[in-house]
Amino acid sequence: MKTRAAVAFAAGQDLQVVDVDLEGPKAGEVLVEIKATGVCHTDAFTLSGDDPEGAFPAILGHEGAGVVVDVGSGVTSVKPGDHVIPLYTPECRQCKFCLHPKTNLCQSIRETQGQGLMPDGSSRFSLDGQPILHYMGCSTFSNYTVLPEIAVAKVREDAPFEKICYIGCGVTTGVGAVAFDAKVEPGANVVVFGLGGIGLNVIQGAKLVGANKIIGIDLNPEKARLAAQFGMTDFINPSEVENVVDHIIQLTDGGADYSFECIGNVNTMRQALECCHKGWGESFIIGVAGAGQEISTRPFQLVTGRSWKGTAFGGARGRTDVPKIVDWYMDGKINIDDLITHTMPLDDINKAFDLMHKGESIRSVILY
Amino acid sequence: MKTRAAVAFAAGQDLQVVDVDLEGPKAGEVLVEIKATGVCHTDAFTLSGDDPEGAFPAILGHEGAGVVVDVGSGVTSVKPGDHVIPLYTPECRQCKFCLHPKTNLCQSIRETQGQGLMPDGSSRFSLDGQPILHYMGCSTFSNYTVLPEIAVAKVREDAPFEKICYIGCGVTTGVGAVAFDAKVEPGANVVVFGLGGIGLNVIQGAKLVGANKIIGIDLNPEKARLAAQFGMTDFINPSEVENVVDHIIQLTDGGADYSFECIGNVNTMRQALECCHKGWGESFIIGVAGAGQEISTRPFQLVTGRSWKGTAFGGARGRTDVPKIVDWYMDGKINIDDLITHTMPLDDINKAFDLMHKGESIRSVILY
Repeated sequence: MKTRAAVAFAAGQDLQVVDVDLEGPKAGEVLVEIKATGVCHTDAFTLSGDDPEGAFPAILGHEGAGVVVDVGSGVTSVKPGDHVIPLYTPECRQCKFCLHPKTNLCQSIRETQGQGLMPDGSSRFSLDGQPILHYMGCSTFSNYTVLPEIAVAKVREDAPFEKICYIGCGVTTGVGAVAFDAKVEPGANVVVFGLGGIGLNVIQGAKLVGANKIIGIDLNPEKARLAAQFGMTDFINPSEVENVVDHIIQLTDGGADYSFECIGNVNTMRQALECCHKGWGESFIIGVAGAGQEISTRPFQLVTGRSWKGTAFGGARGRTDVPKIVDWYMDGKINIDDLITHTMPLDDINKAFDLMHKGESIRSVILY
Repeated sequence: MKTRAAVAFAAGQDLQVVDVDLEGPKAGEVLVEIKATGVCHTDAFTLSGDDPEGAFPAILGHEGAGVVVDVGSGVTSVKPGDHVIPLYTPECRQCKFCLHPKTNLCQSIRETQGQGLMPDGSSRFSLDGQPILHYMGCSTFSNYTVLPEIAVAKVREDAPFEKICYIGCGVTTGVGAVAFDAKVEPGANVVVFGLGGIGLNVIQGAKLVGANKIIGIDLNPEKARLAAQFGMTDFINPSEVENVVDHIIQLTDGGADYSFECIGNVNTMRQALECCHKGWGESFIIGVAGAGQEISTRPFQLVTGRSWKGTAFGGARGRTDVPKIVDWYMDGKINIDDLITHTMPLDDINKAFDLMHKGESIRSVILY
């Protein structure tokens, strides 16, 4: 079949919206009509050429929602008509990782996914007979895409695609980091470095679980208003205090119970650790640092009871937890609407990247 | 009263065994006759002058066992005749730290303890009218010493002082790191960097809780024999493999579930983290690094599910957990006897330091 898609032909170039060929689903695969997709910093990172694993030509996009239109042989968990969210972190429920209680990082198809291929080692996309690579196992910048069955979460049918697509990455990454990985308790003090989309989702996750102080840190004071709306109780502009770590320790009477780094800066990663409370403070890295960059601290910080951790896809097991987060949204427990600042058709997708680079959007969503 | 004690008059000098004056216990304090004390690397670290918090003159020693001979007013938890182990990490059961479920680092008397003083801000020791400082709240290199009530663990009376004194620091630090902090599960793969006294106690802790592979790492192959006796299943000499991290990952089919750094070297701390299994491996720093040294890694190590932590006094709450470890020893669950390589009278205490510096002892115990 043919499908309209935004193709990244080479690093550093605009996407080109063209009709490409798409093979139907093979055994264990599903064909999904994407109804909406967010445009995420990770797409921009790969498109920029900075991603050492980036390969071209490819169809980017990993934050979508849509409807199953066909399934390959052996598929049992979804059927045509089911509403789904693609999962760049799949959940096979059979690998060593899925069977371990402490991780969500299913590795069953990691190798081929990292190569931009389906689990059988081939691509379903092509143009003029030349294969085009998949991306993060999703390729949601295509009106139709093929995914492994283990990489789709079936969700309720009354949830709006143009909102819940954001659960495919950003919402889950932030809310899940609090709820599934850190397991923040009611009454805990939480510190969030960076008030972009991920930071705002961490904040609303902290509010959801009943945190006490929710302290936001950002150099841009304009971000404080929306953060406060999402649950931030205190704002610190690091340029206005002598020492942000000391300031947090004072504000929390000893330090954060949990901190989250949502920037990708190794210096703020260190601050996020060191602002944690002696004895029990846990710091979670969410942001992605530049290639080759390293984090450092004195080991004394750890020996005196702080923990340094990371989180990916919010610790969520996609097929199990993503439907729950859709419920939280539908029940009004989390706010997605106010984070989606722009919507546009696929033809305008390069504008979404421009808005992101200029810092003028929280999340742009492409509607098909 | 007078008591015989080994006094550290200045950094870098031998201890001098002399009779010093000791005031009796004030309110909330107990007078303990020390029957035996281990000589630990931490004592040597302070005596060397490298410890930035070290102050002189002082009576060192923090790994003792003895008998209560007198109590001050208000003391209710112990009475004369009780057998006790002094606690350099006290347990007041009332401070913010004691009341938090995730830490053992009671802070109630930390400030004065760090200054070498009793909680009222004064010292009980003196010589010729000049005060001599306490050390780590214990000063077990004195035949009699005074401690806060919250800094003694009451233990069973049939346990031999000359063995259980080692529970006052080294045994608890190693066994407790496994049992109380890491909470290693049966079947887990454990890696131990450094096969000195702490490493051996980590190994027997891992064996106690039913670990699967217990891999010891040391540059000195002579340490492998005793480590194997204590439960080590595999030995790696880093000088005999190309890359110790890769070697561990291969040996464990993906990495350690838990690793423990028992050396105090920031390079092995990094290896201990990076040899952990993706998704869930947890690395605990036990060793104390040199002043100002820093640990580093790529944040990717944490984002992909490894955790970097530390542990002090094995996560043990002293008054609660130390008596349990004494029971484990008396029940034959852990082996202390083979770790105590030398015993000697107080007059020979400088020989114990010599043996340690030469690497010829695991633990020397002073008998009073």
